[in-house]
Amino acid sequence: MHTTTPDTDDLIELRRDFHRHPEPGWCEFRTTVRIVEELECLGVDEIHVGPDALDSDERLGVPDGETLARWFERAEAETDRPDLLDRLAGGNTGVVAVLDRGAGPTIGLRVDIDALPITESTDADHWPASEGFRSTTEGYMHACGHDAHATFGIGVLETVLESDFEGTLKVFFQPSEELLGGGKAMAAGSHLEDVDHLLGAHVGLDRSTGTIVAGLDEALALSRFDITFEGESAHAGFAPNAGRNAVQALITAASNMYGIPRHAEGTTRVNVGELRSENAANVIADRATAKAEVRGGTTELMEYMRESVYRCLDSAATMHNCSVDVSVIGEAIRWDCDQQLVDLVADVTKGIDGVNDVIPRDTLGASEDATYLMRNVSRNGGTATYLGIGASNPSGHHTPRFDVDEAVLPIGVSVLSTSILELLA
Amino acid sequence: MHTTTPDTDDLIELRRDFHRHPEPGWCEFRTTVRIVEELECLGVDEIHVGPDALDSDERLGVPDGETLARWFERAEAETDRPDLLDRLAGGNTGVVAVLDRGAGPTIGLRVDIDALPITESTDADHWPASEGFRSTTEGYMHACGHDAHATFGIGVLETVLESDFEGTLKVFFQPSEELLGGGKAMAAGSHLEDVDHLLGAHVGLDRSTGTIVAGLDEALALSRFDITFEGESAHAGFAPNAGRNAVQALITAASNMYGIPRHAEGTTRVNVGELRSENAANVIADRATAKAEVRGGTTELMEYMRESVYRCLDSAATMHNCSVDVSVIGEAIRWDCDQQLVDLVADVTKGIDGVNDVIPRDTLGASEDATYLMRNVSRNGGTATYLGIGASNPSGHHTPRFDVDEAVLPIGVSVLSTSILELLA
Amino acid sequence: MHTTTPDTDDLIELRRDFHRHPEPGWCEFRTTVRIVEELECLGVDEIHVGPDALDSDERLGVPDGETLARWFERAEAETDRPDLLDRLAGGNTGVVAVLDRGAGPTIGLRVDIDALPITESTDADHWPASEGFRSTTEGYMHACGHDAHATFGIGVLETVLESDFEGTLKVFFQPSEELLGGGKAMAAGSHLEDVDHLLGAHVGLDRSTGTIVAGLDEALALSRFDITFEGESAHAGFAPNAGRNAVQALITAASNMYGIPRHAEGTTRVNVGELRSENAANVIADRATAKAEVRGGTTELMEYMRESVYRCLDSAATMHNCSVDVSVIGEAIRWDCDQQLVDLVADVTKGIDGVNDVIPRDTLGASEDATYLMRNVSRNGGTATYLGIGASNPSGHHTPRFDVDEAVLPIGVSVLSTSILELLA
Amino acid sequence: MHTTTPDTDDLIELRRDFHRHPEPGWCEFRTTVRIVEELECLGVDEIHVGPDALDSDERLGVPDGETLARWFERAEAETDRPDLLDRLAGGNTGVVAVLDRGAGPTIGLRVDIDALPITESTDADHWPASEGFRSTTEGYMHACGHDAHATFGIGVLETVLESDFEGTLKVFFQPSEELLGGGKAMAAGSHLEDVDHLLGAHVGLDRSTGTIVAGLDEALALSRFDITFEGESAHAGFAPNAGRNAVQALITAASNMYGIPRHAEGTTRVNVGELRSENAANVIADRATAKAEVRGGTTELMEYMRESVYRCLDSAATMHNCSVDVSVIGEAIRWDCDQQLVDLVADVTKGIDGVNDVIPRDTLGASEDATYLMRNVSRNGGTATYLGIGASNPSGHHTPRFDVDEAVLPIGVSVLSTSILELLA
Repeated sequence: MHTTTPDTDDLIELRRDFHRHPEPGWCEFRTTVRIVEELECLGVDEIHVGPDALDSDERLGVPDGETLARWFERAEAETDRPDLLDRLAGGNTGVVAVLDRGAGPTIGLRVDIDALPITESTDADHWPASEGFRSTTEGYMHACGHDAHATFGIGVLETVLESDFEGTLKVFFQPSEELLGGGKAMAAGSHLEDVDHLLGAHVGLDRSTGTIVAGLDEALALSRFDITFEGESAHAGFAPNAGRNAVQALITAASNMYGIPRHAEGTTRVNVGELRSENAANVIADRATAKAEVRGGTTELMEYMRESVYRCLDSAATMHNCSVDVSVIGEAIRWDCDQQLVDLVADVTKGIDGVNDVIPRDTLGASEDATYLMRNVSRNGGTATYLGIGASNPSGHHTPRFDVDEAVLPIGVSVLSTSILELLA
Repeated sequence: MHTTTPDTDDLIELRRDFHRHPEPGWCEFRTTVRIVEELECLGVDEIHVGPDALDSDERLGVPDGETLARWFERAEAETDRPDLLDRLAGGNTGVVAVLDRGAGPTIGLRVDIDALPITESTDADHWPASEGFRSTTEGYMHACGHDAHATFGIGVLETVLESDFEGTLKVFFQPSEELLGGGKAMAAGSHLEDVDHLLGAHVGLDRSTGTIVAGLDEALALSRFDITFEGESAHAGFAPNAGRNAVQALITAASNMYGIPRHAEGTTRVNVGELRSENAANVIADRATAKAEVRGGTTELMEYMRESVYRCLDSAATMHNCSVDVSVIGEAIRWDCDQQLVDLVADVTKGIDGVNDVIPRDTLGASEDATYLMRNVSRNGGTATYLGIGASNPSGHHTPRFDVDEAVLPIGVSVLSTSILELLA
Repeated sequence: MHTTTPDTDDLIELRRDFHRHPEPGWCEFRTTVRIVEELECLGVDEIHVGPDALDSDERLGVPDGETLARWFERAEAETDRPDLLDRLAGGNTGVVAVLDRGAGPTIGLRVDIDALPITESTDADHWPASEGFRSTTEGYMHACGHDAHATFGIGVLETVLESDFEGTLKVFFQPSEELLGGGKAMAAGSHLEDVDHLLGAHVGLDRSTGTIVAGLDEALALSRFDITFEGESAHAGFAPNAGRNAVQALITAASNMYGIPRHAEGTTRVNVGELRSENAANVIADRATAKAEVRGGTTELMEYMRESVYRCLDSAATMHNCSVDVSVIGEAIRWDCDQQLVDLVADVTKGIDGVNDVIPRDTLGASEDATYLMRNVSRNGGTATYLGIGASNPSGHHTPRFDVDEAVLPIGVSVLSTSILELLA
Repeated sequence: MHTTTPDTDDLIELRRDFHRHPEPGWCEFRTTVRIVEELECLGVDEIHVGPDALDSDERLGVPDGETLARWFERAEAETDRPDLLDRLAGGNTGVVAVLDRGAGPTIGLRVDIDALPITESTDADHWPASEGFRSTTEGYMHACGHDAHATFGIGVLETVLESDFEGTLKVFFQPSEELLGGGKAMAAGSHLEDVDHLLGAHVGLDRSTGTIVAGLDEALALSRFDITFEGESAHAGFAPNAGRNAVQALITAASNMYGIPRHAEGTTRVNVGELRSENAANVIADRATAKAEVRGGTTELMEYMRESVYRCLDSAATMHNCSVDVSVIGEAIRWDCDQQLVDLVADVTKGIDGVNDVIPRDTLGASEDATYLMRNVSRNGGTATYLGIGASNPSGHHTPRFDVDEAVLPIGVSVLSTSILELLA
């Protein structure tokens, strides 16, 4: 099969534009606008944004209003699409783009679009710095390649648009993957329901340009919590009994969380990374907060840990006459790739220009909320896989000097669109 | 006022009989029979035993059926009063004796009758050993002078019986003081209701023979618990998650019990003395038990601690999916002596033969459940005091060589009966 | 005895100047300069500042360099005494002023000069606001009357200076009382060594203007800690064992600190008010900090608690392979007033204008590090007392609307200088 | 190859004799005597017992002297070999039997000989009961087939003795496997040093008679501890601070043991099964003991857990001013089978009478201290495997109704001796 991929320079320009404007989860206002403008240019059949793209009620970890407002204002200043922005207000970012060519299978492609709270390197040998497309938002950075992922999405649409096919292609531009906040909501949206085959993809991951993994999986399932204990303050010297000590509740909960029994079925994890009680030494704490997470080798193991954590928190609050509020601010399940689809991708990928190594299957080595979309497609009788698109990186993911070898852009678009067209054939 | 006290030899014989046959709380079957026989001899007006003497439902720390049966059988062998024993079955020990001489005030005297699980010394210079009245029940001993207390009760009845008075004298022979199990039940019985003035007394307490304290108080209030966590066992290697770990529940509870906030109002105490989980190292514990106690400088402080302990236990059980059962097996409140009655006792005591030092008021330095009776009398508008009757001891209370200087027997009877007759006058 | 107190308007002006420029502990640069300027005006015999006033090595809780620098720069801008400021650099605030009139007793007066991190009220009916002497440093406030105390120090010097006496008066203007950081250092300085009689004083404390307490004591001894656990971070999902978890160390320590056994000798307290670990949920914490305190009904009880806390901290660090650093950032012992001096003060105070109620002795109800000075004087064979100078306040100490009834200024000066002159007589 | 196995009736008689006389670890006095008598009958070349059979210093979990003496006396009564028993005194049980036929490889066979503290069923349909060979020692039972294992050892020796071979066969009759106390000592003895190939075997394990697994492995490594905290008792009401609380030390240790971080490399386990503090509720505990264990998917993971436990125990003791004593009372490493030897066994086993299913490799599903011997042989350049010898059982291992289908006796002897002779060929 022969496909016409977009001009590489255009892909590079687009990726650099995304790179210049990193936005964290649920704040991808400018990113969403830019994607929509590209889609309008291409003339895709349907463009769904915000609440039309995903199930807003299922969003996890949406920032507070003040944070959203700050990013929204920044996007207002940087774009000229108030009509579009209005539909995104309140953290309703994300897009689903549809090419509908009538009867035939429905293929989904899921890419993610958010950035990280990392200050990008200014080193002279950091390519984005030397080439002038370093982050313009200090403290934030595309340090995990989602700028390339969004570019893949546009590039694939352009490629498929120019091909002959019958059926439907839907590209899911998912917000808030880094905090595992968007996958569940995107999976719960209506657009995924009729997808027969789903592809996801990630660049880099310590594989060099030209290497393709047809199926990455075995991610640890994960759940992250924001925890707030509320009690009542009192003077530690003159009325210690009059307080309801949120610090005692928190340390009892945390201590018991670390002690949740290991599970015979496999890997479990638990951690309390952040603790905070801001009372003076002489004040019985009326408030103590924590950020914690649990993981599991399977979704069920993560759920076992999550339920155990809830029990620890609730009981510790009761024990110390406090109340506790727990919010899940991010969650990912484990879902593995379908062998059939892995085989197809491995097969069509071999002949593609620039691809010099095709690994059928490997472990992801991280958590991913694309798994929600994969699960739903599989449950509906479809198949799904999550590709690794090698890209030689000078520095690890989530570091200030991370960068993506731009040679990956046409390769990724080609691998994904070739697979999609094969499925549509 | 002149009173005729009983013959000292008779008092000594009686005390030695009690000493020879020590019985622990709620197992004072033989002791109760012997008391009743004495009362019958004296011809007191009313003798109430068992459920007629106290409120059975309020008994704390009644031993299990097997223990009760063992002591009951021993009493059957040692006495010849099956009719009487039948009324005591199930741990219904204790007596209330009444002298009713018509109109006039009602005076109460409370003495306790139980012994301790201590093996009595066989040393040649231990008086009960050398004189042949050492405990005949190995492992149990009157090591706190309740043999003298019971003798005081009989001696006072005999004395008052021979005196002229109008009114009523009630002597409360209370079971199970050592475990603080009987005071609450005795106080809840109907006989205390019309008592106008109540006396209690304790021998020894590091004061020598001839010293009388007219009012002992400031005891720490106390509550003791039997705690049982029940979970579910599982193999620690192959199914750790399948268990519900009673050990984890217990250690979480105990750790938080020690951390119950100190109280601004005064002294609080908490301790877990006994822990027990008898599972093998490779078994998730399905059962773990503990014996614990709390104390307070006031009844309210003890109650604050008790409520906090309950919360720790319940929450820790919930946290680890276990159930918990807590029984209060002993409890004492704080109740202080009435100054008016202390003054009266101090006054009449001064002239008594053998009394060479009268201390108006001192601290008890231990917990006492006579406080329940004192509180109820006070609440009904009466007055109460708890006397210290000095008795030179060769060794401390609750030790294998404890003994009571028998010279205290006529002194105690005289001090108590003189005070009572003064109140009846 | 008749004394000429300073002009009340001058006292008010001086107090308001202090009030306008509140500075926290060890940052009283401007305050110290103003005091010195007053002393120079009065012509006192000796003025010792900074390291000459106290033992710098014994200072507790000195802020970090950046904080000191910020307050120092502010004082540079507000004063014109670079020579003097140079000697105060690095948190060397405080003054000892000496009037030396040859042979005779040496009397000490200790006053404190620091302010609190409280934002002062702007309410129209808040006197400092309406009268225009509200704090000019947002976020800081003289909310405990130390502005009045410093004024007392100057006023007393002026009064005594104008009187006939033989002997020596030393006024100790102590920094950092609020954080209990300065008393120990002031006591350790050389100027206290020959003091025969020491007076300290506090305004307000819920007593109205005209009430004088000749001896306030029974303060809880107190020790405050800054605690830092350091471990090693690791990825909570992929290398939980590779970390050394500072959060686990901290919660184990804190949990056991709350469980430090109560003490038979009296009141003990422990509290962890602040917890902080700023790691993300997926990071094993490499650092966790806390602010904690212990108290005791006596110095020994506080020391028992402090030693127990150290053991908890060190052991918990070892247990989790972490290190721990503990700094005592504030400490106060308990030291009670000498009856002899209390009697003298009570006696001379009765006749003073404006004084309508003299209470011989009462409890302080707070911790105070003047106790260090009192102890040292007593140990040297002298006597010490700590006076309460009633001042009707519209709002409690340490609140944004706290104020001092300025009528107290001449009363306080009079009470203190009369007592001092009596001692010098 | 043809081998002549011993008469089946003789094997059954021998196994039933062992079954009748179960002895726990390090108390296999009678069992050792009976084995030696059999070996003497057979005329094996060397018989090493007790300290000559293994490294006595490496024995783990040797019972206390009283327990040893009780079993020793029982063996004295049941045997007529005081000379032999003398060499076994103090828990020096176990035998190494050697057939030495000059040059050639040295083959080892390891069997275990101890029984369990389980009361054997008296049910009519429990074969040992109905056939009259039920345990004669109430409370103890061969409930894991070690009676069959010892019989295998004798049967194999008899079989090999009657065959032509050059080389050496050593059979290791190992004591105390159930508590994982003997493997380490047996491996440390001198007889294993020159072994080229080692076989171990276990009957049953839920596989039916006729099934042989040529290599069982992937056991969890395990370490078991006896833990004793010692502090100082004190009265919980009147001197709580005077104690050094062993209960607080234990609960802090246990709580932190459950919280030992999970390990990225694989499975870890920790459990505290037994807790014991026998103090009264009003006594600060001076002593608290526990039985605990850790496991690991590899030996290194077990060691990681063991070191972490030591740190928890030591630190918790220090924290509460207590001392702690920890004894490892049982330990097993993980060691997997050598593929080469597994292949050989699988190969020769296929043709053996009674064998109808040969499984090359499976997981053991339990801990085993034969692994120490396997490791040492492998480290010396040899090979080792651990066979599963199926035997249809009416009830699970370690239950009162466990039994071994005696048809397994000739099959086991045949499988093991055929493999050994193949290695000797």
